[in-house]
Amino acid sequence: MKIARTRGELATVLEKERDAGTPVNLVPTMGALHEGHVSLIRAARSSGFVALSIFVNSLQFGPGEDYRVYPRDEKRDLESAEAEGVAVVFAPSVDDMLGPAPTTTVSVGRLGDTVEGRARPGHFDGVCTIVAILFNLFLPDRAFFGQKDAQQVAVIKKMTTDLGWPVEIVVCPTIREADGLAKSSRNAYLQGEDRERATVLWRALRDGCDALSNGRDLAGVETVMLDAFRSTPGVEPGYARAVNPDTFERPAPGGPVLLVVAATIGGTRLIDNLLVE
Amino acid sequence: MKIARTRGELATVLEKERDAGTPVNLVPTMGALHEGHVSLIRAARSSGFVALSIFVNSLQFGPGEDYRVYPRDEKRDLESAEAEGVAVVFAPSVDDMLGPAPTTTVSVGRLGDTVEGRARPGHFDGVCTIVAILFNLFLPDRAFFGQKDAQQVAVIKKMTTDLGWPVEIVVCPTIREADGLAKSSRNAYLQGEDRERATVLWRALRDGCDALSNGRDLAGVETVMLDAFRSTPGVEPGYARAVNPDTFERPAPGGPVLLVVAATIGGTRLIDNLLVE
Repeated sequence: MKIARTRGELATVLEKERDAGTPVNLVPTMGALHEGHVSLIRAARSSGFVALSIFVNSLQFGPGEDYRVYPRDEKRDLESAEAEGVAVVFAPSVDDMLGPAPTTTVSVGRLGDTVEGRARPGHFDGVCTIVAILFNLFLPDRAFFGQKDAQQVAVIKKMTTDLGWPVEIVVCPTIREADGLAKSSRNAYLQGEDRERATVLWRALRDGCDALSNGRDLAGVETVMLDAFRSTPGVEPGYARAVNPDTFERPAPGGPVLLVVAATIGGTRLIDNLLVE
Repeated sequence: MKIARTRGELATVLEKERDAGTPVNLVPTMGALHEGHVSLIRAARSSGFVALSIFVNSLQFGPGEDYRVYPRDEKRDLESAEAEGVAVVFAPSVDDMLGPAPTTTVSVGRLGDTVEGRARPGHFDGVCTIVAILFNLFLPDRAFFGQKDAQQVAVIKKMTTDLGWPVEIVVCPTIREADGLAKSSRNAYLQGEDRERATVLWRALRDGCDALSNGRDLAGVETVMLDAFRSTPGVEPGYARAVNPDTFERPAPGGPVLLVVAATIGGTRLIDNLLVE
């Protein structure tokens, strides 16, 4: 497994490592790899060369968010990557990723400013900008993202289509703990009772799904999900929305509905989602 | 010469036409080709395969600007392209270029909001967004731009560096008429006496250059250039600035100075520039 620290090293390594004709599969991560990431790597490995990026993206954290304390364990990440058959890891510093005085931003507009984007202003511009850089540095045939970050998936698909990168966006299912909690690097923050409380997100989503199946209107479904948050001590509700999975606007009548929730538990902000076809 | 009208057609044509190992040279244009464009094509041809795009970029025109009446003569442009040895022309409709409901924007920030960007709000975001699409569709090794649009050159270099496209930006000298007027598709708008008046831009730049050589400070140099506009009847001054050619901010002491001017003559807005090392 080759490790590149700078854009230049990456270009050199990719030139040597990639066979003409072998698809390049990119798995972009912020490190702190868990089984969700491993599932992406395994999906990527099924069709050729796997490249992994590890970069805690400073651009996608807002003021007062957890950039400084976000879990980092590169040694363990590199061991996992090697064990999973990753060919190339790109693990740059902030300066090596972004360059000396970066000012360029990619924005998908409205889709990036709603729901999660409303809760985290500028978050999706930061995501788009970094993913644009990764697409340009790796020129991947496919890039793998987790359904866990559903709006990120919608944003990246929109950006890729609008700007024409020749990359297939592959979305892999959310990986969950036995009790339903979606795997997330931020779960490491959950202490004591908060770990148990965190199952409320998955419970809210299942309650919402049941309500939808029972014919409740969208406002009713959203209320049901919020009620799950409100009835659980120690849970600070974020949002609970039923949206179109591509636009994050109102779902089309009869079309798919994506239930998306966010809540803060013991200072840790968690998100989850469930697609109802 | 192959002509592609859609993103899909372009991908098919490029796959067939480009030899592995032959550099792809992209010349992005808005059509209405003149000797300036021809000089770009010839520079591109010197090192391999030449692809030309012809697209009057709706995104880079503001309200009240000349998008609707911008010169278009595709038949003549295609004849010129063929005569100059272009291999592939991409000439899409607005929908075929931008897709069904485009919302994604690329912006270089401050550099795109100053000088020409201040006069034309959103202009450089429109330029960046289209050039990003072209880079993704063509995956060129080199892309050719004219020094005539000096701030566009700076903006595209900044965008390319920040986001990491593996494209070399090649800048070709401004081509001028015998009397110094920079070649521009918009020169076609100039009627009667306005054509003669339009030489004031080049005169202002030379006056500014002389003043700089004679030791005038930057404010003095800018005044000299503005005086050239003010003393010519029928000329509406835009701006006359002495800037750093990369940042369009104040030049570094002893560093290169780019003189940039804009003026409107008979309703036609013209720009020009001169680099003083």
